[in-house]
Amino acid sequence: MDQPTEASLQALLAIPVAALGTLHAGAPFVSMVPVALAPGGTGFLIHVSRLAQHTRDMTSDPRVSLMLMAPLTDQDPLALPRLSLEGRAEVITPESGVHAAAAQVYLARFPQAELTLGLGDFSFFLIQIEAGRLVSGFGRALSLEANQIQAALARVSRPDTLDIS
Amino acid sequence: MDQPTEASLQALLAIPVAALGTLHAGAPFVSMVPVALAPGGTGFLIHVSRLAQHTRDMTSDPRVSLMLMAPLTDQDPLALPRLSLEGRAEVITPESGVHAAAAQVYLARFPQAELTLGLGDFSFFLIQIEAGRLVSGFGRALSLEANQIQAALARVSRPDTLDIS
Repeated sequence: MDQPTEASLQALLAIPVAALGTLHAGAPFVSMVPVALAPGGTGFLIHVSRLAQHTRDMTSDPRVSLMLMAPLTDQDPLALPRLSLEGRAEVITPESGVHAAAAQVYLARFPQAELTLGLGDFSFFLIQIEAGRLVSGFGRALSLEANQIQAALARVSRPDTLDIS
Repeated sequence: MDQPTEASLQALLAIPVAALGTLHAGAPFVSMVPVALAPGGTGFLIHVSRLAQHTRDMTSDPRVSLMLMAPLTDQDPLALPRLSLEGRAEVITPESGVHAAAAQVYLARFPQAELTLGLGDFSFFLIQIEAGRLVSGFGRALSLEANQIQAALARVSRPDTLDIS
């Protein structure tokens, strides 16, 4: 990966909202989720209401997709940097050993989430990434393997997240 | 629908890029597509390369989802207005009677698409909407039926698109 491509990937991984694709009765369903980087680059953390359709979807089928997109400008939308990711969502129960660290990292990114963290009907999910497709400009597309994305996530998450060692 | 909700819906329908969810080998896959409003509020027009994964996905299964999101600001991302739509994608072949009108409307919105319009490997698809879910603010969510979305599309598409009567 050349330096401009790596910079584009890192900028996309730092965006705080993503489009989440879930399977709803066998059909795709896309919704919006705030995203935080999980400690150590293991994936993305989302915090979602049990009442929301995407949450029920992930509970019945863990296969998901996340898409991160650069802010829209006056340029050709086809040139807009974006990253499509394929992965699996796994609930982090309050009893899980990583729940406290997830909550700490998530609150560091979204302090206003303190309100929903106190509500019983919100849960954390960890989205682990298995493959990706980066478009960093017009005609500049690159397929990425899980280990390349994890390495980039680890680099980006370091300054953002708390040290839980 | 009250006036602020209707205004929020219209603003979202006017956004030129969407997250497209397709089915890829049974799993969800989310990518970015520029979107134009089809004449008469019949749905959304997208113009995609036959080489792209989302195009192959739509060709093998027409079920899709589109998500439109307001630009990110400093506010709580959970309050960000967004619209999730469920629908079906149908290719518009060059031989189709509506192909010329589709090209005209699309070029009026994306003049730079003249380049890709000339390439043989790009096709138009019409995405017809069957249901939707609008979030116009924190805790302000509303399920929409196909006819409500079509009516809103027709209202929004009028000033934007060409008169093809």
